Amino acid sequence: MNDQSRRDFVKKSVIAGLSTTLPASQLLTSAAGDMFVHHVYFYLKNKGNEADKAKLLEGLNKLAKVPTIKFVHIGSPATTDRSVIEKGYAVSWLCFFNNLEDEEVYQKHPIHLKFVEDYSALWEKVIVYDSVGPRRS
Amino acid sequence: MNDQSRRDFVKKSVIAGLSTTLPASQLLTSAAGDMFVHHVYFYLKNKGNEADKAKLLEGLNKLAKVPTIKFVHIGSPATTDRSVIEKGYAVSWLCFFNNLEDEEVYQKHPIHLKFVEDYSALWEKVIVYDSVGPRRS
Repeated sequence: MNDQSRRDFVKKSVIAGLSTTLPASQLLTSAAGDMFVHHVYFYLKNKGNEADKAKLLEGLNKLAKVPTIKFVHIGSPATTDRSVIEKGYAVSWLCFFNNLEDEEVYQKHPIHLKFVEDYSALWEKVIVYDSVGPRRS
Repeated sequence: MNDQSRRDFVKKSVIAGLSTTLPASQLLTSAAGDMFVHHVYFYLKNKGNEADKAKLLEGLNKLAKVPTIKFVHIGSPATTDRSVIEKGYAVSWLCFFNNLEDEEVYQKHPIHLKFVEDYSALWEKVIVYDSVGPRRS
């Protein structure tokens, strides 16, 4: 990569608003248009059961390998505590896609289907928020 | 920036899991530890009122200038439609912080206080999910 292309890479990564462990060539395709944000909150059947939570996290770490995912964050409720804050879930699963089509590929991907098959017995419910909005420069 | 430091910048941005419009010097400080994800869903008093939604978006674009925010995404419900998907909100406000302390700075920041003062009449309720989890390499 020469100096100019390296500068372009850095600049375009910044425009995209996020970078991932993907090769630069894939990052560059995500520099324009909307971004699809998929956020799932998992509520365990056995609320507070650490072994079940660990098992779910194991599953999500496998799920993170679906290739259309551009960025993923796996979290637990923070210590913040105000009346408007929902804290009853066990695990937050946040991922970004370049577009709706990539999220549809994820939904039907064998890794996702296997995740649901292997781990869905752990959760009582999920709440999903899918939102779309422009990448920010 | 020489070749080596440029390589380091790119590498560390990737490790951080996200990049922003911040200078590289600030990005590099966020390469380790947990990431704090703050996700707010706004429900308008006048559900479906496009003028009110536009006004809220105007406010959120001002709010995005709080300096401790490392990444922000402003969205609307996607077209996806399954029973587990919550679509009743008008606007999704997602932001990342380096840590809890930076989120506390944001909560008390004059820009945030002014946002609440100027725009809170627009919403009927908000639901907030704060979650914390490791940055992914």
